[in-house]
Amino acid sequence: MALVEFHFDFGSPNAYLAHLVIPEIEKRTGTPFEYVPVLLGGVFKLTNNRSPIESFQGVKNKLEYQRLETQRFIRRHAITRFAMNPFFPVNTLMIMRGAVAAQMERVFDRYVAEVFRHMWAEPKKMDDPAIARAALDQSGLDGARLIAMTQEPAVKDRLLANTQRSVERGAFGSPTFFVGDAIFFGKDRLREVEEEILGSTLP
Amino acid sequence: MALVEFHFDFGSPNAYLAHLVIPEIEKRTGTPFEYVPVLLGGVFKLTNNRSPIESFQGVKNKLEYQRLETQRFIRRHAITRFAMNPFFPVNTLMIMRGAVAAQMERVFDRYVAEVFRHMWAEPKKMDDPAIARAALDQSGLDGARLIAMTQEPAVKDRLLANTQRSVERGAFGSPTFFVGDAIFFGKDRLREVEEEILGSTLP
Repeated sequence: MALVEFHFDFGSPNAYLAHLVIPEIEKRTGTPFEYVPVLLGGVFKLTNNRSPIESFQGVKNKLEYQRLETQRFIRRHAITRFAMNPFFPVNTLMIMRGAVAAQMERVFDRYVAEVFRHMWAEPKKMDDPAIARAALDQSGLDGARLIAMTQEPAVKDRLLANTQRSVERGAFGSPTFFVGDAIFFGKDRLREVEEEILGSTLP
Repeated sequence: MALVEFHFDFGSPNAYLAHLVIPEIEKRTGTPFEYVPVLLGGVFKLTNNRSPIESFQGVKNKLEYQRLETQRFIRRHAITRFAMNPFFPVNTLMIMRGAVAAQMERVFDRYVAEVFRHMWAEPKKMDDPAIARAALDQSGLDGARLIAMTQEPAVKDRLLANTQRSVERGAFGSPTFFVGDAIFFGKDRLREVEEEILGSTLP
């Protein structure tokens, strides 16, 4: 059975929307997704890529079309908990390092669910340490400890290594999925991701 | 029943690949696609957009991923008749005007099928008038007449009007589809196009 990976950065609304749909796919396929924290800013630096908002800023119709596709995705999956973050773009270095810290502390699943919520359901300025700490505490996590851990070399190195490895395997943006070695980019590939999982699990 | 439109330029390999798949969708949905010739270079000028090859030239992994998605599309639809045009990018002004001329001459369907073939199955330098004329003649069309007609103001104006109208309705690249007023961009949206057609034809 192929390993299924979701390479994500909390700063990407498309990663959040994918995150909301992943449980349905896990249920239908019987295959868990492994969440891999990467730093999108690092992916962009390593690939010389830019965010869609930067790339398409001066292009007529293109961002409008992307917004339309986002609305369609939200409607198709009956998503109710999504709000644009008014502080977008939020610098995610601290909260992505926090995700690695949360792995070490074995609170990763809750951390991911809660930080996505604090970014895109009840959006906050999560690059502000005081706000992030309060949000994590509110979520029943140890905000002070997780944020302190983001300064540890082992945490920093792990996020950097995840990011470099992701680019080495073909990533250039967020969200990126791997089914074994097969790469898929973007929330709109989730159908193909599901088909690839089902194909790869056939006897 | 919604009008279904395919806005295409022969210069786009993705438009060609969509063209090969459209007949299956027409059969399954019982809905014909109306082919609308537009000038992709004009769309790019009007929207300040650029081709993916230009936009993503310096970006690591992105064009490789697009190639992978093209291979997946070809495999999924069991496409055997596709060859990259060695003269890419071909200036398509003449052959797109020729498509409008072919509409006036009531040989549009054959012209479209044959020019796509001359671009992407048995690729030729179709911006060379002598080569284009010979190719059209070989296809049983009146090459000399169609190419002469590309200089008529009515033909030029019609292609320009199609292109402007397409951008006014939200287009920024090729291929673009409309199901009624709903816009879809890219060959990878054909599934959603099909679903939209089926949804719009429900009682």
